[in-house]
Amino acid sequence: MSMTILIAPSGFKESLTADEATTCIAAGILKAMPDASILKAPMVDGGEGFTQALVDLTGGTLHRLSVTGPVGDRVESFIGFLGGQKIRTAVIEMAAAAGLRLVPRDRRNPCITTSFGVGELVRAALDAGAERILLGCGDSGINDGGAGMAEALGVRFLDADGRPLPGGGAALRHLASIDVTNVDPRLVKVRIDAAVNWHNVLLGPKGVARVFGPQKGATPDQVEELAAAMEIYAEAIARTTGTEVGNAPGAGASGGLGAGILGLLWGRLHPRYEIVMQYLDLDTLIERADLVITAEGSLDGQTPYGKVPAEVARRAKLRGLPVIALAGTIGKGVTLNFEHGIDAFASILKRPCSLDEAIENAGKLLTRAAEDAVRMVSVGIGLASVRRNGVKLRRRTAAGRSDCRPKRQSRTIAAV
Amino acid sequence: MSMTILIAPSGFKESLTADEATTCIAAGILKAMPDASILKAPMVDGGEGFTQALVDLTGGTLHRLSVTGPVGDRVESFIGFLGGQKIRTAVIEMAAAAGLRLVPRDRRNPCITTSFGVGELVRAALDAGAERILLGCGDSGINDGGAGMAEALGVRFLDADGRPLPGGGAALRHLASIDVTNVDPRLVKVRIDAAVNWHNVLLGPKGVARVFGPQKGATPDQVEELAAAMEIYAEAIARTTGTEVGNAPGAGASGGLGAGILGLLWGRLHPRYEIVMQYLDLDTLIERADLVITAEGSLDGQTPYGKVPAEVARRAKLRGLPVIALAGTIGKGVTLNFEHGIDAFASILKRPCSLDEAIENAGKLLTRAAEDAVRMVSVGIGLASVRRNGVKLRRRTAAGRSDCRPKRQSRTIAAV
Repeated sequence: MSMTILIAPSGFKESLTADEATTCIAAGILKAMPDASILKAPMVDGGEGFTQALVDLTGGTLHRLSVTGPVGDRVESFIGFLGGQKIRTAVIEMAAAAGLRLVPRDRRNPCITTSFGVGELVRAALDAGAERILLGCGDSGINDGGAGMAEALGVRFLDADGRPLPGGGAALRHLASIDVTNVDPRLVKVRIDAAVNWHNVLLGPKGVARVFGPQKGATPDQVEELAAAMEIYAEAIARTTGTEVGNAPGAGASGGLGAGILGLLWGRLHPRYEIVMQYLDLDTLIERADLVITAEGSLDGQTPYGKVPAEVARRAKLRGLPVIALAGTIGKGVTLNFEHGIDAFASILKRPCSLDEAIENAGKLLTRAAEDAVRMVSVGIGLASVRRNGVKLRRRTAAGRSDCRPKRQSRTIAAV
Repeated sequence: MSMTILIAPSGFKESLTADEATTCIAAGILKAMPDASILKAPMVDGGEGFTQALVDLTGGTLHRLSVTGPVGDRVESFIGFLGGQKIRTAVIEMAAAAGLRLVPRDRRNPCITTSFGVGELVRAALDAGAERILLGCGDSGINDGGAGMAEALGVRFLDADGRPLPGGGAALRHLASIDVTNVDPRLVKVRIDAAVNWHNVLLGPKGVARVFGPQKGATPDQVEELAAAMEIYAEAIARTTGTEVGNAPGAGASGGLGAGILGLLWGRLHPRYEIVMQYLDLDTLIERADLVITAEGSLDGQTPYGKVPAEVARRAKLRGLPVIALAGTIGKGVTLNFEHGIDAFASILKRPCSLDEAIENAGKLLTRAAEDAVRMVSVGIGLASVRRNGVKLRRRTAAGRSDCRPKRQSRTIAAV
């Protein structure tokens, strides 16, 4: 019997995008079960791969352009346009203009990196006639609250003497006023929907500078400097546009880019998978599948709280589908996932190794793990059919049934 | 449907005996599939666990006694007697008197450790009326060629001046003659069958000193000293009893104990699982099972060449049974095992870790891995029955069959 398997993984942090993970899992499945039909649903959040995924899902187009990168150099970037929409819809991922990957390791200083290029992408989308912009947040290398982005769209950030501030988050400590006089007027009409991590806030002990500053290269002093700058920035936004961004869910996403989108670009923020889900139609794919394989870098007691495997499992279970989860690390409390729709899981590791080795070989290991998992599943399928057609049935027949129809009948069914 | 699962693992080197591995796997299976019936076949070689396993399999008895340990201290040891045999059959494992575990880490010097205690165990078996002795080799901490064992049974090892040599392998460099005048006369009548690693030879580049000396604590100089001593020892045995032990398969087993058994005790050597297999009746267990789970410390391209999982798989496949292998490390060339009857495998690892961590937690990890594997298998069983009874069948029915018998019939079969 040929099986239809839906692959719906998250990306693996620092090693595989959701798209790459999907490709690896597909390859593994087909090694173990060459006649399987594969459905793909890479679970892209707003980070790297957001644009490509939405363009692929809708049959849209990708356009290349160069913009100002996070450290001020020009970088090659891109925007997309969705296919088949009633209103002209652009898709932008902030990581393509201000992502951590674009900041050379020896220049990782979120006090000075800028989101200016993101604003240039938005401008390019407006120039190309966008009526709606989907803006993916994630994998950022900046902490300027989206001030750079707003500046590229005509907003001016001024100190007490009315002089424009230099770029970067730290300079916002000297912010006295925001001038929106010359803001791009098209922003009023365009609808901006941003995919953000809903749990990221701008200010306070769990604010963006304190939680994400260090992994972007900030020293402890720089973290405090940035946290103070974000306080001043949020106050200035409130004074200017009346929008309170300090504790708004998602406003801290991507180095505070969410705050800029919400407070200065009149945009709306959405939980990170919501936008992709609108175009992905996961439920229809689930409807067509027999089995779902999901994956994430780690699977543990936190997974049920909003991670990809849990969301995929929840939807699959509405249709009664079995769900397998693959992960780099199986962590504490993982069995909680059994109550949330995951039926079986496996680690991609095959031998003792360090985290770095695992990350380096993640693609190969994930392919292998998918193959191994499907082989285990096949053992079960084989067992069920042997017991249906073979030994156990013959035992029943031997126990007194002269009618051999059950056996023949079950063969017919097995051939379905 | 209730499943009968046969558990037939090897031990995990330095962490789990075959018995312990069996217990762990059983616990894991029952977590995932509480109604499974479990059959156990710990695949014990001649090493640790040999005596207990044979006593358990035959309903025999275990007897405790103290003997000379490998470093000369008294150690608590034991011998067994099989139950239900026509001739009185003792069972001894050399590791219980001269195992590596009995040599404190700071005294690991195979130049001086002795197998004397093994001879004492043999003598105790003879004293208790043994007509046959099963002697398990493996996990040794000595390299004296079994000279110590023979000495405990009356054989004398003399230097050129006719003086008895001190114990330990290195002293045999000074061996000039072997005196068997006072050997225990009961040895002529008793039949000794030893379970050995068939690939271990006494002499040459793959001889026991060079291959196993270092892991027993020998320095490179000591290895060469021991290798030279074994040459002299083999020549002396040939002169004394006419037996050529130098290249006999298995004569190098357990620090050369095989040579002593073969050359001085008139014993016979057998490949390591052969003796246990006679009492285990693996084939009958396989006949009763639906699925086999085997395991070993590592699974790789070498597994098909005589390792436990391959032997278990070979026998299972004669009955068409599916076989799952669990291992600590999945190594190079592992896919070769698919051609040798293993249908699916999984590593017991769940996260990046060192080999030491893996060894330390092997029991917990193996339990967990068995549970995870059976959950994967259950996904397959579930898939097969959903497809039989559910969606796919309904699709067929919808396509024109008004007769609903197939559906009803398949339910009956599913309930078998």
